[in-house]
Amino acid sequence: MGEMIEEKAVFASGSVWLAGAGPGNPDLLTLLAARAINEADVILYDALVGKPILQLAPKEKWEYAGKRRGDDKSVQQRINQRMIALAGQNKKVLRLKGGDPCMFARGGEEAEALAAAKVPFRIIPGITAGIAAMQQAGMTPTHRDYNHAVSFITGHAVDSAAPLLDWQGLAKGSPVLVLYMARHHLDSIARHLLAAGRKEDEPVAIIANATLPEQSVQYLTLGEAAQGKASPPDEADSPAPPTIITIGAKRCW
Amino acid sequence: MGEMIEEKAVFASGSVWLAGAGPGNPDLLTLLAARAINEADVILYDALVGKPILQLAPKEKWEYAGKRRGDDKSVQQRINQRMIALAGQNKKVLRLKGGDPCMFARGGEEAEALAAAKVPFRIIPGITAGIAAMQQAGMTPTHRDYNHAVSFITGHAVDSAAPLLDWQGLAKGSPVLVLYMARHHLDSIARHLLAAGRKEDEPVAIIANATLPEQSVQYLTLGEAAQGKASPPDEADSPAPPTIITIGAKRCW
Repeated sequence: MGEMIEEKAVFASGSVWLAGAGPGNPDLLTLLAARAINEADVILYDALVGKPILQLAPKEKWEYAGKRRGDDKSVQQRINQRMIALAGQNKKVLRLKGGDPCMFARGGEEAEALAAAKVPFRIIPGITAGIAAMQQAGMTPTHRDYNHAVSFITGHAVDSAAPLLDWQGLAKGSPVLVLYMARHHLDSIARHLLAAGRKEDEPVAIIANATLPEQSVQYLTLGEAAQGKASPPDEADSPAPPTIITIGAKRCW
Repeated sequence: MGEMIEEKAVFASGSVWLAGAGPGNPDLLTLLAARAINEADVILYDALVGKPILQLAPKEKWEYAGKRRGDDKSVQQRINQRMIALAGQNKKVLRLKGGDPCMFARGGEEAEALAAAKVPFRIIPGITAGIAAMQQAGMTPTHRDYNHAVSFITGHAVDSAAPLLDWQGLAKGSPVLVLYMARHHLDSIARHLLAAGRKEDEPVAIIANATLPEQSVQYLTLGEAAQGKASPPDEADSPAPPTIITIGAKRCW
């Protein structure tokens, strides 16, 4: 049921467009996502879609679909049901997510739910925060002379009972690691990587609010990160700002 | 010297914007790259920027800066010098690359050259082809239940004297591998991965011309790829179309 992006794609009533909003700066929306924001009847958005993008369409269009206090795992089911219900009411439904919809953002799960419900949908990629954040902080994900592989990792379940990450493999396979949702587990991740042979003096960068006027970058080493020396996020910021952490990339310009 | 993307960024004369054009479909340009195409005095582009995007600005603006027959390693130096010379002539210089400028595209090298020459520049990320291609072929780079890491790899130097890839690490570290410029080395890459423990029946997808009307997808297994069973690209296509190869991602919708 997932339709390809085609030339001058028509946003049909009763369909869902599952789109990425990019890293935060509204100028980094794609032309197609910007058009979808204009044309949609309703926009289901989550917490990573910030004010500069919310201002692009009238308030009545926006419906918050992110996590709420006290939510459990059923939150994803609620979002899926809501998309399907709105499409059933013959709306043009835009499901808008920060970054790219399928990079650590559950877009794949939502696409599966739409396909199972036989709702026509289309996926529109967005700039993923990890790539944009590195560039804006003066680093490059890959380099012809010394880095032919880059790995993107989510750190949010690092300490869970069933670890889904192989730190030995990641440490050996990829000179540059880009971590999403890892701020709270950085010490633990750094220790995993040191145990797997990565070096104490490797550069680490913690990039918050990438591409926005509030962007901040903290540079340290992997050894310092393992010792918990990264400055904590400002407690006044609630929710915590979206943060990307890079390991092994040096500042180039 | 690299300036951050700011709100309503001004494209100043004598500066270079190093931008990604995305995977091919012009609707996947960012708003900022689209504006840069309009405002630039000259656009230095390479082979991965296709006709649908070239049509967005008058012919006289475009200057081909990609590889030419007989080029050697000095090609990058020539491009760097050309960017710097045009900025020195007080032009608004857009350096436009397919995909993202820093994902296997030497944007990092170009940024370093601009910084060394003290030319003001800004990097504008683009949708990288690997992510867009997967979605359009019904696959997701990451999944909350079974994949918390995805690695992006360039395959163009796989058989060179100084291998820059650790196949053992990549095979263990990342359930999903996304290969750029790897079409000619797929057999060899598949054998490396099988030797490192990946399974014969793992899904492989070869996605050419992602997000364009000509998009094609070939699905096979890692074992078949190792045996050279992937269909060769159509010989009538010259140059060969941009191709992404994914390993380990199953079709989800």
